[in-house]
Formats: sequence, C-alpha cells, structure tokens
Amino acid sequence: MEECLRESGIREGLVLVNAMHITASVFINDNESGLHQDYEQWLEKLAPHQPISQYKHNLTGEDNGDAHLKRQVMGREVVVAVTDGSLDFGPWERIFYGEFDGRRRKRILVKIVGE
Amino acid sequence: MEECLRESGIREGLVLVNAMHITASVFINDNESGLHQDYEQWLEKLAPHQPISQYKHNLTGEDNGDAHLKRQVMGREVVVAVTDGSLDFGPWERIFYGEFDGRRRKRILVKIVGE
Amino acid sequence: MEECLRESGIREGLVLVNAMHITASVFINDNESGLHQDYEQWLEKLAPHQPISQYKHNLTGEDNGDAHLKRQVMGREVVVAVTDGSLDFGPWERIFYGEFDGRRRKRILVKIVGE
Repeated sequence: MEECLRESGIREGLVLVNAMHITASVFINDNESGLHQDYEQWLEKLAPHQPISQYKHNLTGEDNGDAHLKRQVMGREVVVAVTDGSLDFGPWERIFYGEFDGRRRKRILVKIVGE
Repeated sequence: MEECLRESGIREGLVLVNAMHITASVFINDNESGLHQDYEQWLEKLAPHQPISQYKHNLTGEDNGDAHLKRQVMGREVVVAVTDGSLDFGPWERIFYGEFDGRRRKRILVKIVGE
Repeated sequence: MEECLRESGIREGLVLVNAMHITASVFINDNESGLHQDYEQWLEKLAPHQPISQYKHNLTGEDNGDAHLKRQVMGREVVVAVTDGSLDFGPWERIFYGEFDGRRRKRILVKIVGE
C-alpha cells in the first residue's frame, strides 16, 4: 500500500482498498494473531459453514453460502485518508484481507485519488 | 449506475452509492436469488422483527427497531473505483439496495468524483 | 462536521469520517436514544464481553476482544457526499461515534476532498 501510494505521487486524498471477490473482505483492525482467530471463530458462530444445506445459495452447486454472509459482517472495502503523502492511520490500524471460502485466486483493488 | 457514470464524463475516480434512509442498505454482492433469501433469513435470525417490544426504539411508535440493526450488518454505502470510464468491478460484483422495513418511498444517492 | 466543511471551502466532493481506534466505530443512523440502547444490547448479544477468557485476544492482557468484534459490525468509517457545500444527508441521517471498550482518549479523522 505504501508503495502504491509513493508511486502515485499523491500527497492529499483518499485511498480505496476493496476485495474484488464477493466472498472476501478488506478490513482494518489490529495485527494480533489471537484476534484474527477470534474473528474466525465468531464469524463461524454467526454464519456456520455446516450444514451447507441451510443456505439456498448452495443449491447452485456452491458450498460457500456462509462466506457471502461472513463477508458482509467484515465489509468489502476500506477508505483511508492520505495526508502529507502518508496513509493517515490511527494507532495499530493495519489493512487486512479476509478470505472466507478459501477457493479461487483472488485480488484486491487499490485506487488512489487526490493531488 | 453506468448511465450516471457516462453522463458525468469522469474517467478516473470514485463513486459513492449510499442509501438515503437509515433502515436501508446499499451493498455489493452476487446477483443470485437464493443468496438474497439467505441474507433475509440470516438477518432475521441476528435481529428478529418480533417481538417488537424487545426494541426500545419501538417505544417511539415505530416497529422498525430491527431494521436499524439489520442495516448496520449490511452497511449504508459502497465506494467503487472508476477506471478508464468504467466501474472497476470484480467478477459477479453487483450493487444492491436492501430494504428492511418496507415502508416509505426511499432513495439512493450516487456521487461521482474524479476527472 | 459542518464547521470542518465550511472551513474547507469545498462545494462538491466526498467527506471521509473514520474512527482512529480499532475498538471504536463511526456510523450513520438515527439520533434516538432508545435505538442507541438497542445497539448496545444487541452488540452485547452478538459479541458478549464476558467471559473475557472466550477471546484469544485477551491473552495479550487486554479485556477488549469483544470490542474489536463489535466495531466490525458497526463499521470503521462513513463516506458522505458534499453537494453545493453541504453534507448530502437523507432524512434523520446523523453521524455517530461508537465506543466499545471505554478506555483511552480517542480521536476521529475527518478528510474532505473535492473542489
């Protein structure tokens, strides 16, 4: 991200970072491995993977109905301010990619606007 | 949306799309009807409509306390990149409007910034 | 917010408002005190504070594992359109700061882009 920002030459503006896939999230939180396990366990409680027959979406042949729900809790995108050429983060803020069905090669989009 | 974008003439920038009502959502996910039923059923489990007396908000005479909660799970807004004059979507990404109390005429806002 | 906007002199653009802390939220909803109590009670059901031992994050010595989860439901940030020098709000839309661990002095960021 910092590299994208440097390349853009933008000093003041906004950065949008979003998952390009509808079963994945981009979110900002703490870089602490216990917390990331807590998220996984909590999301599994809110939207269990099994039984896969509980989701109508899985009638299409997919088994990732739960992943579409988990991604709504965690969000698709973040927007971060760029101030004086840097990402304007609070303490401990880090950007993460969350993957909820573990399939397919996935990408994120980074869009920087400003001057 | 594509029409709004064409009219704006903007080639590079960001589009904000938000619900103008606090019991509704704009979100991005798959255009698959089973999934949309899964969302409804799941949100009803997370924030049941009945009994309406469980929400203090309903003491105001409303019965949509649950709708305000559901909308927080699904989100108010999306921000999408505009690249080369097009919405920069991943595979299957579509923008949806989610309505949680089924009352009143509602509107969304589309704001396009860039150049 | 209106004051920040006036000072910026920006007439058309976007405002980003985000919590600078990873256990807090900025969100848009109704300014109704019953609803805000409903949010608290609902979030406590979705991600209970006690027992604190249920969250691996609390092994770090913190007791705010639940606050990191609550903040994901309510969101980190909002993006609001600026049209003709004003925040382009729907009826009843107000911006709120949600605090989920009740510790530390916290800040929000307001970034305005446009012209």
